[in-house]
Amino acid sequence: MSLLTIGTVAFDAIETPFGKTDKIIGGAAPYISLAASYFTKKINLVAVVGDDFPQAYIDLLQNHGVNTEGLQIKKGEKSFFWAGKYHDDLNSRDTLVTELNVLADFDPIIPQSYQDCKVVMLGNLTPTVQRTVIERMERKPQLIVMDTMNFWMDIALDELLKTIKLVDVLSINDSEARQLSGEYSLKKAAKKILGMGPKYLIIKKGEHGALLFGENQIFYAPALPLEEVFDPTGAGDTFAGGFAGYLCQSEIINFTAMKRAIIYGSALASFCVEKFGTEGIIGLSHEAIEARARLFTEMVTV
Amino acid sequence: MSLLTIGTVAFDAIETPFGKTDKIIGGAAPYISLAASYFTKKINLVAVVGDDFPQAYIDLLQNHGVNTEGLQIKKGEKSFFWAGKYHDDLNSRDTLVTELNVLADFDPIIPQSYQDCKVVMLGNLTPTVQRTVIERMERKPQLIVMDTMNFWMDIALDELLKTIKLVDVLSINDSEARQLSGEYSLKKAAKKILGMGPKYLIIKKGEHGALLFGENQIFYAPALPLEEVFDPTGAGDTFAGGFAGYLCQSEIINFTAMKRAIIYGSALASFCVEKFGTEGIIGLSHEAIEARARLFTEMVTV
Repeated sequence: MSLLTIGTVAFDAIETPFGKTDKIIGGAAPYISLAASYFTKKINLVAVVGDDFPQAYIDLLQNHGVNTEGLQIKKGEKSFFWAGKYHDDLNSRDTLVTELNVLADFDPIIPQSYQDCKVVMLGNLTPTVQRTVIERMERKPQLIVMDTMNFWMDIALDELLKTIKLVDVLSINDSEARQLSGEYSLKKAAKKILGMGPKYLIIKKGEHGALLFGENQIFYAPALPLEEVFDPTGAGDTFAGGFAGYLCQSEIINFTAMKRAIIYGSALASFCVEKFGTEGIIGLSHEAIEARARLFTEMVTV
Repeated sequence: MSLLTIGTVAFDAIETPFGKTDKIIGGAAPYISLAASYFTKKINLVAVVGDDFPQAYIDLLQNHGVNTEGLQIKKGEKSFFWAGKYHDDLNSRDTLVTELNVLADFDPIIPQSYQDCKVVMLGNLTPTVQRTVIERMERKPQLIVMDTMNFWMDIALDELLKTIKLVDVLSINDSEARQLSGEYSLKKAAKKILGMGPKYLIIKKGEHGALLFGENQIFYAPALPLEEVFDPTGAGDTFAGGFAGYLCQSEIINFTAMKRAIIYGSALASFCVEKFGTEGIIGLSHEAIEARARLFTEMVTV
């Protein structure tokens, strides 16, 4: 059974206190797909780029087992471009450039071969486009996971709520959970958000880890304290990809399986931030991932 | 074997978004002593108050098994007074009043009956006074734990470093660890601070939990997401008191015991913030503490 993922595929130009990149491969979908590729080899990508997008980047995804049949390449158009600069603490950043380009009128077409699908991972994108993907699935997948951000809460809350209602797992960060629920206490926020439709809520807390809420259940996966964080770009998407990828290969999908999925998502995210862009999650060995995941579980063992 | 603790004993006037108190019992030492009292009944307090300090507050401590022989009551002088107002998110506060009063020339006298001592818990106070306590111990205790804050890093760094050099465990928060070490990465910060003398470092991260660093060892105790936080005052002191109290009754004091000590410290702190001032940590049952501690360990169990 396969993982279907949708998200931006983009050029990113990143500046951190440790260095600067030219336009490199970015967007939610590459991070999700690469992270998921360590758990399942059936990753079906739905996305859009312009014809300025290098074949080498598409090859990179394909070499990690990503099916790009659903990647639309728009002739004569330009790919989505984001440029950002992180502050010294790496916890906040300024967006320098956002050029939507091909993303402005993205119609997510689902190839027929993608229909046999166990898990859908909706990367951060216009909530309307995310919902279109759900509506275009001929059979309900076992699990729909949705990542989103405060931007959509600010400008498209109604559309966002309609989409949230249809998903099984929502993944947002702590300030977004507070914004969406109007509650400061994350426990109260979770209760309210679970009342909006999802059965599970993931609250990402960056360097402080992640919380998973189910009905009357809480799981807390701390983040591993790292020597070096070079570039936080894509950490949330990588986390989501590891999470969804792990569940795609899991026999049973329940709260217990999601705990392990969060550990693997966190482990992948910890590799991600140690290098620039997607570099940290390319060509990892399964041994390295297992060893990293063990650090996460050992760290909390009393 | 007993716990010796030193710290401020004060009047606090607290304002949070949920209410306001008149002058109530405050300061590091009452929180430390009350929290520790659930683990050991031999708590020897060294502190100073003015003769304006109500006998009822001293009774409260004594009723929790705290020996107040070392509590100096200065005739005709006034007790330390602090007033603060928390912002809406409860994560930051403004200090409205700080009146040192008796604290200005506090000379910590150790009664002879306090000398047989297993654990010393140095609550946040002038580092010189903390060091005087260590110097006045006739036999080295098994463990010296020190809590401090950024204020002393700002105005008395040399004195602070001299005291840190003499302790076994240092307990500070994340921004203080960054300030003290000059490192943003907490892992690097811990390495540097462990080079300053202590064998163990606790980094408190408030609602995100606490980290314990030993030589090549890390333990992460997340904080329990709470429905309501009414008043964060004294949470760090309560944590320290629970930690030191637990170790005082532990047969062996090592990294493994400290993990459990951190869980109990965190559990006590979670009770503390649910009510105003010390109210949340008065008259708790052992069953309630055990049940709360279990929530902390269950929450991270994969």
